[in-house]
Amino acid sequence: MDNYMQRNGEIWAFENASKQELRVALANDHCENGDGYDGVVLGLDGGTTSTVCGYIRRCLAEVLSKSGSNRSAVRAVCLGISGVNHPTDQERVLSWLRKIFPSHVKLYVQNDAVAALASGTMGKLHGCVLIAGTGCISYGIAEDGREAWASGVGPILGDWGSGYGIAAQALTAVIRAHDGRGPQTMLTDKILKALDLSSPDEVIGWTYADTSWARIAALVPEVVFCAEASDQVANKILLKAVQELALSVKAVVQRLGLSGEDGNGSFPVVMVGGVLEANKSWDVGKEVVKCIQEFFPGAYPVRPQVEPAVGAALLACNFFMKELKENKHS
Amino acid sequence: MDNYMQRNGEIWAFENASKQELRVALANDHCENGDGYDGVVLGLDGGTTSTVCGYIRRCLAEVLSKSGSNRSAVRAVCLGISGVNHPTDQERVLSWLRKIFPSHVKLYVQNDAVAALASGTMGKLHGCVLIAGTGCISYGIAEDGREAWASGVGPILGDWGSGYGIAAQALTAVIRAHDGRGPQTMLTDKILKALDLSSPDEVIGWTYADTSWARIAALVPEVVFCAEASDQVANKILLKAVQELALSVKAVVQRLGLSGEDGNGSFPVVMVGGVLEANKSWDVGKEVVKCIQEFFPGAYPVRPQVEPAVGAALLACNFFMKELKENKHS
Repeated sequence: MDNYMQRNGEIWAFENASKQELRVALANDHCENGDGYDGVVLGLDGGTTSTVCGYIRRCLAEVLSKSGSNRSAVRAVCLGISGVNHPTDQERVLSWLRKIFPSHVKLYVQNDAVAALASGTMGKLHGCVLIAGTGCISYGIAEDGREAWASGVGPILGDWGSGYGIAAQALTAVIRAHDGRGPQTMLTDKILKALDLSSPDEVIGWTYADTSWARIAALVPEVVFCAEASDQVANKILLKAVQELALSVKAVVQRLGLSGEDGNGSFPVVMVGGVLEANKSWDVGKEVVKCIQEFFPGAYPVRPQVEPAVGAALLACNFFMKELKENKHS
Repeated sequence: MDNYMQRNGEIWAFENASKQELRVALANDHCENGDGYDGVVLGLDGGTTSTVCGYIRRCLAEVLSKSGSNRSAVRAVCLGISGVNHPTDQERVLSWLRKIFPSHVKLYVQNDAVAALASGTMGKLHGCVLIAGTGCISYGIAEDGREAWASGVGPILGDWGSGYGIAAQALTAVIRAHDGRGPQTMLTDKILKALDLSSPDEVIGWTYADTSWARIAALVPEVVFCAEASDQVANKILLKAVQELALSVKAVVQRLGLSGEDGNGSFPVVMVGGVLEANKSWDVGKEVVKCIQEFFPGAYPVRPQVEPAVGAALLACNFFMKELKENKHS
């Protein structure tokens, strides 16, 4: 984030280290376009509707103070947040934001995948984003505004390309090797060591003691390690994840026709999340891109250089400017 | 259960309809063997260690009263209960039972799979049992007392042959057909109708609103219906479940050497649980048996005619008689 601040003087981004992972970005003169606009816009990213709203107030004061600005300068706010899929969800969050900000502030609520896409396209809503962290989701939007989603349905509904999915399959492989249903694998020693357990039997108790998805997804590096050491079971799990992630993108691209009529059209695939950023010799993100480009040679990967919160700030700018222009012409 | 009472005058079984699904069986003169033993033994089955113990006291009074017996006549009790895998679990449950029964009563605690095996072998502990209801588990015991387990590790660790596993895959198939990742399937209409939902999008909310495994497993009949109507997606899910269940049995049989040195030895495979009892034209249980017999021609399926609680009562008899004999000879 500091790097980004040095590279681009137009946008200041501040990371809030709260447990809820709320991040706040603040865009200033970037949005100025000669219309006499001289305020700031805010981008917020993270959390879910159930946890984030109580923290916004506190974070905002801090961010505005750090940037030498204050609440009255805020013109527009865009919040990227997970679990916002229906207009009713948006309305609920908007009504919370409305209580925090003065009535003249323009408020926008988007699914966090939309902010993630914007973080890779510098605010332009076009193309596809693939997020693979603890969960995974693919989102795309066409030039005409049509949207499509794939995956993002959690572990019960088979998000096998997610960090959780990869790690759950690795834990399963340990159990299967132990009870005789599956081949022996390096994953056993590696995972037992990582969890400080002495027997595969104890993996069962560990798994159900706390079914937080993030806790299980934290085992992904062990799987990558074993795959890099040529463990066939770990390798197979990662290959399956690659196929699943590429399939999510493919489904979105096909529904929106992002690759054009001849299938060779150019479009960005923004890649976000720990699973895609491994940057090891077994590179899940790289393999996913290869797999996508087999179907769509014009797909080009983008690895965002800024936080999703900056994406949200860019969206706030764009939405705000669009409204200003529309009001001017009406 | 009434049928059983008419067929076999030696054992009375009473079903308790509590929500915890505790079942109690009572064996009387069946155990009498000329040693002057004239009391009753009790078999209890069901629930988990966390829910069942508070209910035992109340159920017992009812059962004993119905049978015209009373607490002082009880000689031995065997409780079959899930989640009892380690001696420490057994000790904890035993200490609870100890508070309920007078000190002269012999108490035995077994995993519910052991009681289920006994329900198919009339108390003899030899062979293999496969349980596939909401969850699934395979347990086996050799003549020399060696035991082995496979599966029984819950949904996160991939019990794909369980009712939960089958239904979760069906829900996943509905989502994948909807977002473009998978083929269209009859499961969509069938499951939406069963859940009274209007769109596959609503399946996500339904799934995570209450992640009780039994609630999801209740969709198995919809999957069987679609497979019987030649839906390829449903068919594939059931075929995978069959392979998984057969694999669990295979793992146990191989580890114990139940099929003998030449692999053709005869042994029972007791089949228990809703998934195996479908008794429809797409018969999961029948397919599992076929699959097992390809590996082990001497495996013969047993579908118990009595409740697992009766199995527990038979175990109580056998353990009790064995102790009496040992004490006599010592």
